[in-house]
Amino acid sequence: MKHLAVLFLVAFATPAFPQSLVSPEVHADGRVTFHLQAPNAKDVVLRCEGVRPASMQKDDKGVWSITTEPLAPDIYVYSFAVDGIRVLDPGNPVLKYNLFSTENQVHVPGPATLPWEINEVPHGVIHRHFYKSAIVGDERTFLVYTPPGYDPAAHPPYPVLYLLHGYSDAEDTWTTVGRANVILDNLIARGLAKPMLVVMPLGYGNAQVIAGGWARLRTPEFQSIYEDSHARFRDALLNEVIPQVEKAYCVSTDRAARAIAGLSMGGTQSLYIGLNAPERFAWVGAFGSGGLDADFAKTYPGVGEATNAQLRLLWLACGEQDSLLAINQKLDAWLKEKGVRHTWTQFPGAHSFRTWRPLLVQFTSLLFQDTP
Amino acid sequence: MKHLAVLFLVAFATPAFPQSLVSPEVHADGRVTFHLQAPNAKDVVLRCEGVRPASMQKDDKGVWSITTEPLAPDIYVYSFAVDGIRVLDPGNPVLKYNLFSTENQVHVPGPATLPWEINEVPHGVIHRHFYKSAIVGDERTFLVYTPPGYDPAAHPPYPVLYLLHGYSDAEDTWTTVGRANVILDNLIARGLAKPMLVVMPLGYGNAQVIAGGWARLRTPEFQSIYEDSHARFRDALLNEVIPQVEKAYCVSTDRAARAIAGLSMGGTQSLYIGLNAPERFAWVGAFGSGGLDADFAKTYPGVGEATNAQLRLLWLACGEQDSLLAINQKLDAWLKEKGVRHTWTQFPGAHSFRTWRPLLVQFTSLLFQDTP
Repeated sequence: MKHLAVLFLVAFATPAFPQSLVSPEVHADGRVTFHLQAPNAKDVVLRCEGVRPASMQKDDKGVWSITTEPLAPDIYVYSFAVDGIRVLDPGNPVLKYNLFSTENQVHVPGPATLPWEINEVPHGVIHRHFYKSAIVGDERTFLVYTPPGYDPAAHPPYPVLYLLHGYSDAEDTWTTVGRANVILDNLIARGLAKPMLVVMPLGYGNAQVIAGGWARLRTPEFQSIYEDSHARFRDALLNEVIPQVEKAYCVSTDRAARAIAGLSMGGTQSLYIGLNAPERFAWVGAFGSGGLDADFAKTYPGVGEATNAQLRLLWLACGEQDSLLAINQKLDAWLKEKGVRHTWTQFPGAHSFRTWRPLLVQFTSLLFQDTP
Repeated sequence: MKHLAVLFLVAFATPAFPQSLVSPEVHADGRVTFHLQAPNAKDVVLRCEGVRPASMQKDDKGVWSITTEPLAPDIYVYSFAVDGIRVLDPGNPVLKYNLFSTENQVHVPGPATLPWEINEVPHGVIHRHFYKSAIVGDERTFLVYTPPGYDPAAHPPYPVLYLLHGYSDAEDTWTTVGRANVILDNLIARGLAKPMLVVMPLGYGNAQVIAGGWARLRTPEFQSIYEDSHARFRDALLNEVIPQVEKAYCVSTDRAARAIAGLSMGGTQSLYIGLNAPERFAWVGAFGSGGLDADFAKTYPGVGEATNAQLRLLWLACGEQDSLLAINQKLDAWLKEKGVRHTWTQFPGAHSFRTWRPLLVQFTSLLFQDTP
């Protein structure tokens, strides 16, 4: 096999991108060193969660480097800005996929007790379903997490959580970044969550809502596009996704065993869909809801004291450093004023999965605990 | 909802990366226009399959653009080189994930008859399984495609293809780039392939084989790392993955209904595993095999005329513009010399999924056609 290296190199090597640096390097004390080979760059900035943006230092070989202060065990999203252009870390295959700006993730490992650390416990399975949506008019997918040891003939059938992603993310972000499957595996193994299915659909109800990137949000037509997207997504969820799930899996069709929750845009959708369809969902969660309409009475016309008899749990949370905190606090105040029983949690953290992972832990630990 | 845009922008906007250009634009005649905003760059090169690398032109707003000649309907992998650094297209959320160099894909649509076009036919499901490998010593995943209408109580049980990815790719590349699920959906709908399961495991048998990027292949220790990786991967496949698949799914355990195939590194692994375990696999396919050891007699000691009674199909193929053509031709010649019945296909194309998609169509159309 002596010619192996030569044969591969001829076929695959991309001499324009020769980098084979080890990056990131996570040190035992939590410091992280990043490297990027960019000999022609004038300025390379590390943009990393939990770290103030800082220019990296270049050595005589054109390699830019920086080492952070010690970071707490967690998973951080980062990328490089090379002369103002976003660049992925070629040394790191762990991505945070995003429709507008895919970045990298770096994991500073923590104790096995952290619910998003991968432990040697039984693992669930993630199923990717494909279907043509008549309502949205495209081919799309939804993911279904089945818990460890899932039994298609279980009695009673499993409860099910519909878990919605944020704006610019996709149906797999709750698993690939949020580690929802890892969290459920761990909580179930420890007896802290009920075995449940988690369904993660693509959350856009029209193509326009994600056409044009962030700049689109500044345009006058965005508001009506966003509202249309929510309405179509709701229809697709209720009339296309849920029937497919209930046909393919052993899940309860009882509202008492059906929950809806999400982050940011998905939080807003969970409230919009869940609070307006109490005959479908008895459990509603919203983390760092984004794009909330401040006219709550208009958005949730049926919500009032009667809601208390319908919902088992209405659980709202937001990061204390999330710029969406104020509008979420207003919703909390409005619900109080209306006499609607709910839980409001302010969590130390920003608009980030560093906040949403622990919030998912808290929320899923509460779910379905009164069911048999 | 009038404050929506403001609220989102505060939370999410990344002013350093303001691009919201539409890129790529696929024109009706197959030309493709790419744009990238990079006002500080000195040179931006488009690196796109099927297109000679070419510098893009900058306008007075710092936007670089290029339009290709008309491209044949197909899916092309591309990225930008900005002053020598690889940059993804921020306008295009469709990626080709790769451990060393994630790039973008652009789809020039073709007629619905092309087997990798998504058609309105029943779709299979892709299941992601997680497990701790005692043999490799890590937590890893494998994917399982179940065909449309999969019946867990089917009789006879389904045949199964183990489909292996190439070096630097991952367990999902055969679906996200190779469109194996789309191809199977289409072929099954047209009656051109038998309903079958396709299992796609992660193909690395040790961590070292992918540590260090392409430069690692130049190092003296790589050969033994690569051989060790193949041996451990084989053991994990035979002793960990296959038993899990046969426990969880309704698949035949008869060698006559079990196939193994792959591209590049996965082709070499399919030959190494399949030809040395005829009691397990009656169908073997290898496309553009990469890293073949030219000492075939040593690698496949049991292969000879007796092989003809064991194998239903030994199917080798390589792109005519693949730099690995010569070594694959040598293997074809050696098999002929040994009197081993096999099929050898030279296909117009390079070391690319543009070649492997049509080869997968050909191969899966032949599979299991003699079984009930």
